[in-house]
Amino acid sequence: MNYAEESIVKHREWHGKIEIKSKVDVTEKDILSLAYTPGVAYPCLEIQKDINQSFTLTGRSNTVAVITDGSAVLGLGDIGPEAAMPVMEGKCVLFREFGKVNAFPLCIRSRDTDEIVNTVKLLQGSFGGINLEDISAPRCFEIEDKLKKCCEIPVFHDDQHGTAIVTLAALMNSLKLTGRKTENTRITVNGAGAAGIAIVKLLLKAGLKDITVCDRKGIIHKGRSDLNSEKQNIARITNVRSSEGTLRDAIKNSDVFIGVSVPGCVTGEMIKTMASHPIIFPLANPEPEIFPNEAMKSGAAIVGTGRSDFPNQINNVLVFPGIFRGALDVKASEINDEMKLAAAEALMNSVSADELRTGKILPSALNHKTAELVASAVAEAAVRSGAART
Amino acid sequence: MNYAEESIVKHREWHGKIEIKSKVDVTEKDILSLAYTPGVAYPCLEIQKDINQSFTLTGRSNTVAVITDGSAVLGLGDIGPEAAMPVMEGKCVLFREFGKVNAFPLCIRSRDTDEIVNTVKLLQGSFGGINLEDISAPRCFEIEDKLKKCCEIPVFHDDQHGTAIVTLAALMNSLKLTGRKTENTRITVNGAGAAGIAIVKLLLKAGLKDITVCDRKGIIHKGRSDLNSEKQNIARITNVRSSEGTLRDAIKNSDVFIGVSVPGCVTGEMIKTMASHPIIFPLANPEPEIFPNEAMKSGAAIVGTGRSDFPNQINNVLVFPGIFRGALDVKASEINDEMKLAAAEALMNSVSADELRTGKILPSALNHKTAELVASAVAEAAVRSGAART
Repeated sequence: MNYAEESIVKHREWHGKIEIKSKVDVTEKDILSLAYTPGVAYPCLEIQKDINQSFTLTGRSNTVAVITDGSAVLGLGDIGPEAAMPVMEGKCVLFREFGKVNAFPLCIRSRDTDEIVNTVKLLQGSFGGINLEDISAPRCFEIEDKLKKCCEIPVFHDDQHGTAIVTLAALMNSLKLTGRKTENTRITVNGAGAAGIAIVKLLLKAGLKDITVCDRKGIIHKGRSDLNSEKQNIARITNVRSSEGTLRDAIKNSDVFIGVSVPGCVTGEMIKTMASHPIIFPLANPEPEIFPNEAMKSGAAIVGTGRSDFPNQINNVLVFPGIFRGALDVKASEINDEMKLAAAEALMNSVSADELRTGKILPSALNHKTAELVASAVAEAAVRSGAART
Repeated sequence: MNYAEESIVKHREWHGKIEIKSKVDVTEKDILSLAYTPGVAYPCLEIQKDINQSFTLTGRSNTVAVITDGSAVLGLGDIGPEAAMPVMEGKCVLFREFGKVNAFPLCIRSRDTDEIVNTVKLLQGSFGGINLEDISAPRCFEIEDKLKKCCEIPVFHDDQHGTAIVTLAALMNSLKLTGRKTENTRITVNGAGAAGIAIVKLLLKAGLKDITVCDRKGIIHKGRSDLNSEKQNIARITNVRSSEGTLRDAIKNSDVFIGVSVPGCVTGEMIKTMASHPIIFPLANPEPEIFPNEAMKSGAAIVGTGRSDFPNQINNVLVFPGIFRGALDVKASEINDEMKLAAAEALMNSVSADELRTGKILPSALNHKTAELVASAVAEAAVRSGAART
């Protein structure tokens, strides 16, 4: 298939991949008198008395804003807010299809973090959750942190946390298959942007201990003077053996390689220096850090990529519809670490022991059951951790 | 019907009156590769090259934001942004039903005009039009003016212009029925808020000349020192005979009374002082300035109200779906006076000479044909006046 031509033709034909429908049959005059004037005044007054009623008398509690500034879109980079909209619409399609969530795309024409934060803050009364998308690092960290402080609804940067959750689930099943223990598995993460940093933090919370992180300049360690504050934090919480050097040095003797970086930066030679039967997740999209056949040839036991045309697709769509479905179902005020870990565990367990094999560490991205399993685990964790409003 | 109880029960049941659906069948893997990664990259790149492509490759050009700060909602007043949402959702239902427009409700948690303007300005790349709703005067004038200057898409405050257009259409048909001429028809407008001021301006543009406007304190004239800038302007452009005094003075010998003010402020006695067979539009909602039976008993030839339970309902739903449908169809950059006048004329003509009578000056609010007629007239006027992008 010629993706370029075909996709543009289809997008012109779709003219928007989502549409807004009425749930009310207004051809009946009586119904219109309830849904609109004069009847509509009464739910308005109920909400005026108690703002929490907006979660039951409007669509708010099943509606998520998919928000971007277009600064870090797919592998395309900084293409601007309007150009990011086809991706945001695609995301909304997946929210509907897998999570039964009303998701609406909003692109913000600003690069100022405070302006972006303020815009979302002022709109929060229209939504039950905020999904941040394709915002460049390190701005995305500041935007998410500030929004979490000023919003009464969940704020979730999918490029960070969605990626971290699906990667953790894939890793845990891979550890099972290769007979490794959480505590002493040695991991190299290449890439210290939004996804890389979130992956590291979640792996640490899940009990992984031996993680070395590299950026473009090599291993992140406390001795480096060129680190932004997020990377300084990474230097503090990772690198237990105080390594210095390049990616090539880091990867040597590692059990696991996780790439959220650039195409082709890992070679078969490098794989061969790893521990035997290593686990390789080259997640750069669309072209991975190393192609699966090359990695397998060099001794990899398991390879997972972001692509649908290889086995073991490690794709956020396995996570975000279920995470928000679960959070919305209990009117959660946030998506906390307990909820993220519960999502990863549910995703991991959604592949039964019978089905689990090196070519099947995660369910198919098109499996509708997954979001339901994730949602119910997330809802439970929200209640347990006190994030649920109901 | 017990509107209060019934409406709250229904709203709880609906749990949001609109929903967002996918137009794409993602159960086919190939389609997902076009609508989402990797195919979605290509329309993104097209828009990056030419931002106007966002009108054809995304849903932007059929999507309208329905925006409020909840400061002047229905007859309820300042109930806050979240409490206004049931009305906004109702509006979105009508946009879909009558205009086939994707309308999405956004409430803004601010009362600062610049903050509201900036929020909408930053979001405009997500929409083909902006419908402002239920924002209090005089803030609504400033917000609309500023937005018109900084937005490349139409900005339309329905409480002003929708009301003005439907009132003009109703008036023109009433003049026909009572054998009056535009130039020398004497009109009293009571109420100088958002709707009143917009009505006056549009009537003047349509060739009505003899208009006297009253606010709470009586006739607006140049000698008054208590007028805000909008009312000072009204004093300059109306009141050709330099009247002073109360509403009672203004209404005497008038051919037409238009009320966008408060319930019960007009009596049968006052109607009797008007020119013979006067035209009475008491539009206060839900309780009019004078009830139709009382007005008719006092000599009115034609009475139109905002209510569906009396003849001649003068309701914005006859206008806004068609106005935006027409503007969106030609990717208009604004909704200008030519387009508003064209909408009023199309609405006026949508009642044929055969059907036209004192009890039927406008089509039914539930007539689907109306929006189509308005849309095509508005689209033509946009092309003629240079507002169309295509």
